Amino acid sequence: MYPASIQALIDQLGRLPGIGPKTAQRLAFFLLAEPPELSRALADAVVRARETVRYCSVCFNFTDIDPCQICRNPARDPKLVMVVEHPKDVIAMERTREYRGRYHVLHGTISPMEGIGPERLRVNELVDRVAREAVAELCIATGSSLEGEATALYLARLFQPRGVKVTRIARGIPMGGDLDYTDEATLLKAFEGRQEI
Amino acid sequence: MYPASIQALIDQLGRLPGIGPKTAQRLAFFLLAEPPELSRALADAVVRARETVRYCSVCFNFTDIDPCQICRNPARDPKLVMVVEHPKDVIAMERTREYRGRYHVLHGTISPMEGIGPERLRVNELVDRVAREAVAELCIATGSSLEGEATALYLARLFQPRGVKVTRIARGIPMGGDLDYTDEATLLKAFEGRQEI
Repeated sequence: MYPASIQALIDQLGRLPGIGPKTAQRLAFFLLAEPPELSRALADAVVRARETVRYCSVCFNFTDIDPCQICRNPARDPKLVMVVEHPKDVIAMERTREYRGRYHVLHGTISPMEGIGPERLRVNELVDRVAREAVAELCIATGSSLEGEATALYLARLFQPRGVKVTRIARGIPMGGDLDYTDEATLLKAFEGRQEI
Repeated sequence: MYPASIQALIDQLGRLPGIGPKTAQRLAFFLLAEPPELSRALADAVVRARETVRYCSVCFNFTDIDPCQICRNPARDPKLVMVVEHPKDVIAMERTREYRGRYHVLHGTISPMEGIGPERLRVNELVDRVAREAVAELCIATGSSLEGEATALYLARLFQPRGVKVTRIARGIPMGGDLDYTDEATLLKAFEGRQEI
């Protein structure tokens, strides 16, 4: 029904996550109605990013130089490594401008339901790295989902026998959050994690 | 914070309509994690579509040949022209497999609120076309929004004095629709448009 090149564009856009057929069609028509420069700039950015970006061989974050800017920064403490699920978590943490350690990106969580075991994540690389760089503390900053908690527990059991201090980021009520909008599990964690003021 | 090529990709994706910064980041990380072939196929489809697709010089639908497949099809009645807002409306109507007339795509609706007058739409081209091709009936199939109705009224007043029959697609309850889930304005239109069975 569509000219072939429009259908191909819709198909390609529809392969992106969360982009259904209707949205793909809307995006395609937007691109066709805009000046060609916009389409070319988008296409260039896609190809260039995919060509220049790779995984850091130390922390497995995305980077365009290897090791990445954080792993090659002598001001960042190599003995303190925060373990996160995804590259976007690094960005979120960096926004605090306070954390001075380094990172390790797992690229997922252990999820028996989806058949994802530790061998599918960057866990072996973390074992090697901890030994090689004499990491003193692993701060597990996976999310607070079932899988995130299970992954944290797995890593604690893996690294504690190796003499590494394994910590977990605090779970509690978010800043600005009301208690009566907070679920029970979070309130319980917040109570358990209470500290003297 | 991101490597420059990732930031550029996020920026370009964020220029698409309905794609906010969070979604753009998610799409970028998806592309980076997938094989490079997927990024290349997407980029190729974007560039190729934008290069090969233009407006049909007769009906202003998107096409890769001019006139488009519908306008050059002698089996489609050139005396009956359905006026729609957008190319996607042509696709929707074609799905019925019943309509045998042709189309005219306005690329929008008259909207005084947004400063869009008939001169911003393909109305002058429709005036020329109606005269040139001796169009007998214009079926106005703009949407049933305020703007769609206003555009229909405007076109009726423009073309009726020229001896063209101007019709409007029916407004009523959708097929499979329940009356008690239908708003009053639609029910009123459905009642006004009642026909003997």
